[in-house]
Amino acid sequence: MFSDLEIAQSYTMKPIEEIASVAGIDAAMLEPYGRYKAKVNFSLLDDTVPQGKLILVTAISPTPAGEGKTTTTIGLADGLRRLGKKTAVALREPSLGPVFGMKGGAAGGGYAQVVPMEDINLHFTGDLHAIGAANNLLAAMLDNHIYQGNSLNIDPKSITWRRCVDMNDRQLRAVIDGIGGTVNGVPREDGFDITVASEIMAVFCLASSVFDLKARLGRMVVGYTYDKKPVTAGDLNAVGAMTALLRDAIKPNLVQTLEGTPAFVHGGPFANIAHGCNSVLATRMALQLGDYAVTEAGFGSDLGAEKFLDIKCRKAGFTPSAVVVVATIRALKMHGGKAKNELGTEDLNALEAGIPNLLRHVANMVEVYHLPVVVAVNRFPTDTDNEVALIKALCAERGVNVVLSDVWAKGGEGGVALAEEVVRLCEQPSHFTFSYQEDTTLLEKLNAIVTRIYRGNGVVLTANAQKQLKQFEDMGYGNLPICMAKTQYSFSDDATRLGAPEDFTITVSSLRLSAGAGFVVAITGNIMTMPGLPKVPSAEKIDVDECGKITGLF
Amino acid sequence: MFSDLEIAQSYTMKPIEEIASVAGIDAAMLEPYGRYKAKVNFSLLDDTVPQGKLILVTAISPTPAGEGKTTTTIGLADGLRRLGKKTAVALREPSLGPVFGMKGGAAGGGYAQVVPMEDINLHFTGDLHAIGAANNLLAAMLDNHIYQGNSLNIDPKSITWRRCVDMNDRQLRAVIDGIGGTVNGVPREDGFDITVASEIMAVFCLASSVFDLKARLGRMVVGYTYDKKPVTAGDLNAVGAMTALLRDAIKPNLVQTLEGTPAFVHGGPFANIAHGCNSVLATRMALQLGDYAVTEAGFGSDLGAEKFLDIKCRKAGFTPSAVVVVATIRALKMHGGKAKNELGTEDLNALEAGIPNLLRHVANMVEVYHLPVVVAVNRFPTDTDNEVALIKALCAERGVNVVLSDVWAKGGEGGVALAEEVVRLCEQPSHFTFSYQEDTTLLEKLNAIVTRIYRGNGVVLTANAQKQLKQFEDMGYGNLPICMAKTQYSFSDDATRLGAPEDFTITVSSLRLSAGAGFVVAITGNIMTMPGLPKVPSAEKIDVDECGKITGLF
Repeated sequence: MFSDLEIAQSYTMKPIEEIASVAGIDAAMLEPYGRYKAKVNFSLLDDTVPQGKLILVTAISPTPAGEGKTTTTIGLADGLRRLGKKTAVALREPSLGPVFGMKGGAAGGGYAQVVPMEDINLHFTGDLHAIGAANNLLAAMLDNHIYQGNSLNIDPKSITWRRCVDMNDRQLRAVIDGIGGTVNGVPREDGFDITVASEIMAVFCLASSVFDLKARLGRMVVGYTYDKKPVTAGDLNAVGAMTALLRDAIKPNLVQTLEGTPAFVHGGPFANIAHGCNSVLATRMALQLGDYAVTEAGFGSDLGAEKFLDIKCRKAGFTPSAVVVVATIRALKMHGGKAKNELGTEDLNALEAGIPNLLRHVANMVEVYHLPVVVAVNRFPTDTDNEVALIKALCAERGVNVVLSDVWAKGGEGGVALAEEVVRLCEQPSHFTFSYQEDTTLLEKLNAIVTRIYRGNGVVLTANAQKQLKQFEDMGYGNLPICMAKTQYSFSDDATRLGAPEDFTITVSSLRLSAGAGFVVAITGNIMTMPGLPKVPSAEKIDVDECGKITGLF
Repeated sequence: MFSDLEIAQSYTMKPIEEIASVAGIDAAMLEPYGRYKAKVNFSLLDDTVPQGKLILVTAISPTPAGEGKTTTTIGLADGLRRLGKKTAVALREPSLGPVFGMKGGAAGGGYAQVVPMEDINLHFTGDLHAIGAANNLLAAMLDNHIYQGNSLNIDPKSITWRRCVDMNDRQLRAVIDGIGGTVNGVPREDGFDITVASEIMAVFCLASSVFDLKARLGRMVVGYTYDKKPVTAGDLNAVGAMTALLRDAIKPNLVQTLEGTPAFVHGGPFANIAHGCNSVLATRMALQLGDYAVTEAGFGSDLGAEKFLDIKCRKAGFTPSAVVVVATIRALKMHGGKAKNELGTEDLNALEAGIPNLLRHVANMVEVYHLPVVVAVNRFPTDTDNEVALIKALCAERGVNVVLSDVWAKGGEGGVALAEEVVRLCEQPSHFTFSYQEDTTLLEKLNAIVTRIYRGNGVVLTANAQKQLKQFEDMGYGNLPICMAKTQYSFSDDATRLGAPEDFTITVSSLRLSAGAGFVVAITGNIMTMPGLPKVPSAEKIDVDECGKITGLF
């Protein structure tokens, strides 16, 4: 059995110019980064030309068993191309944190990968570093402003802007900086997030142009004055320099799947305190250049698809044509109560007990968003024939459209059946509707998400959250959409309640304003914005030979 | 009068493939980064082919008036090409810190620049970010090791490895991290350096191959055990992953001067706690591909050239053929006692009083290193004819070889006279000698530098430095060369003693081990490894238009 890296390295990639030509990108629009990656000038975007069909790949509530959402997205695109359809993929770009921590690669797996996977998983074209630099420039300018006389009257205790690093480093979660004497800044409590949690990443992914990027950066609130007025990046005159740092990064990256399908891998915000989707510009490129544009959203559909639809599609004016909900038999058995170390054995009861999780995700897409849906059962070698037969039967009984997908083992060939069903769904009339209207109150929006998507009884705000809600509405931010930061493991805010929990409320402990991204984050439970490394980090297994070939990366 | 950026943007750059062809680089060895930058595969390096002449550009002791060392390096190379000589430049790549702080660009100036200057001054090909990521991965793995049980028995109070960020951010100089509860690491005093001060930058610049890079990374000491044994990056199993992060960065970057001369801009370590020269690999490429390879070293010759010759040339086996000492009339007037705001007016007395600084730099190159020298007087518009006549006369009287250089205003044409003299010097026999032998004691090496180069009476070690010296010799590091971290403004360790001070000692307050880079740093006075931003950072003036064109960058 080969590792993902070994499979990827066994393929001969096509020069990126050839992939651009497949996508219909003029060579003059291409800025190569090495031989197999390129940035694409977004001046090629043109809203007046016909746009392709947008297909969202989402999933059941994630479990440690894994679902294979990215793998399915890539395999579906390769499957569509095998049907002769002009197809492009839009994916998030990975952070270095998980690469050196313990999560698998973020470039697909098996025979459904985007390549060069080592590059994509390491610095790629430098976008995350550019975002980190812009984030930290703003932080340095903010503290420098205070140190140099604080003419804006900023209260250091009210600063909300944190520094960032693209690394899992728990040591930096909470720090006191500015210590060591009068020449060293102003002592205060501070902390670092992983770069993908920076609001600049969310801004970057929602910006529709350089002009829009600048406007959003300028609106970002970094803290408050002593008299409680918001202070923005615009107030600190930081917008131009931040934009200069992001000038190249903002251009979507073009790579290829193992089967040579054009893939735009660009932007990757956190799926809890941000919206968890690749950049709007990358999706627009995929839509313009593909008759079918396949993309994904973070976590399960309650978080990822909800934000993709209610935030990204709303802001960018996208209308999806079909939704794929990825499930695995292993994960459904976990939702049905089976322990992770027992998933290798057949258990029809656990599988049946886990089905309600899948059904709720499907029902939300159909009933709330009015979108055509297919369930893709992503096959694992350990799935038994009995289990496969059962899931088909259970879905059929309940009127759920289901297709087996075997893209990990077979690449595009394993995704042809799914592709055929997706093509059929895309021909159906679309009645896409948001789960809430933007002009309702923040509380109404919160309750809409909790009752309609999570199927809970309603939202409960702590006293702190109530105060912040009023503050944000008073400041004029009440018309922003909500970005829910909730555990991805459960529809509820309790990570241990798997399956399809009933009769719960969602407690919002605090709200956070992302005025540049354009949403209010509702935080439930402890949301970690800086991961830590495990006892044996995967970094310890990575190596490079004298020719520059990397080994041990997944 | 145009800004450097406006001049650079007014030129039409040649595609990087064309520059590679000028340099004789096979297209297969090129990895383009956009249309005007490329990384060059170092497998083209071949010690068995004839190597070019190595020309070092250094300077008098720097003053706030500026010397124009990089500008002269570029203009000299363009001048050599105007003489029909096959020439390549090797330069340091800039840090983001000064770009947003207050220093000018680091890509030359006027009509002697390397381009695309915006890219070179911003992220370029991502090398600094890669070095920062490797630095911070090691830091995260170190703290994680302690947090996860500390099987290596590391004393957190003895940790010498600091985190880094490529930004001027005084707020991060001294921090307490790991606070906020038991899940957040181990509370300890810590701090950040600017990325160019990371030992990894020095390692990167001295590495001769991937194999050597790995060996050096593995030797880096990050702290000590409770029983005072050194702990290395190798002990933490971090070498492979750090090398993976540096895999592309380690390849030299190819760009062009405004006149189309191939320029390798690669690596840029601090010139105080490190050796302040571009990478060995870039210099080797320039030497292999140019009959003349022009390079520079940081600060004045007492620091930059000394380290270039005693550390870099020794380790890489380079033998320079000629040295150019850059001086300006403005700077010499400052050495002669004139204030910065009076430099615009003619002052022959101040100029004559400042000459001894120049003479000492020249004498060191001739008498200590036995290298052929020419002084390049880098012309400023404010220089008067009387001043120019005086400096020529004063140099002639003292037997100093001097040439006027006007490359800022005239590009390569203004460097032809200098180029002609350099060609002549390169034909002279070379008797290059180091200023000290490596197998002497650390104290002997320190005294050699202080007495022979600085012309002081000797070195004084504080009790702390004496203890460290013994410790490092006991640990087996006594045979490493010395890297002096001293103020660049004076031959002495007192920044206010300009000119050619006499009768002083140099006090070393502490030593620092850079076991991976392969030198012992001797620290005199306060050496700042994390700059701060000024009251009005230049970042505030930078902007980007809708087409991505940057303005306000120098």
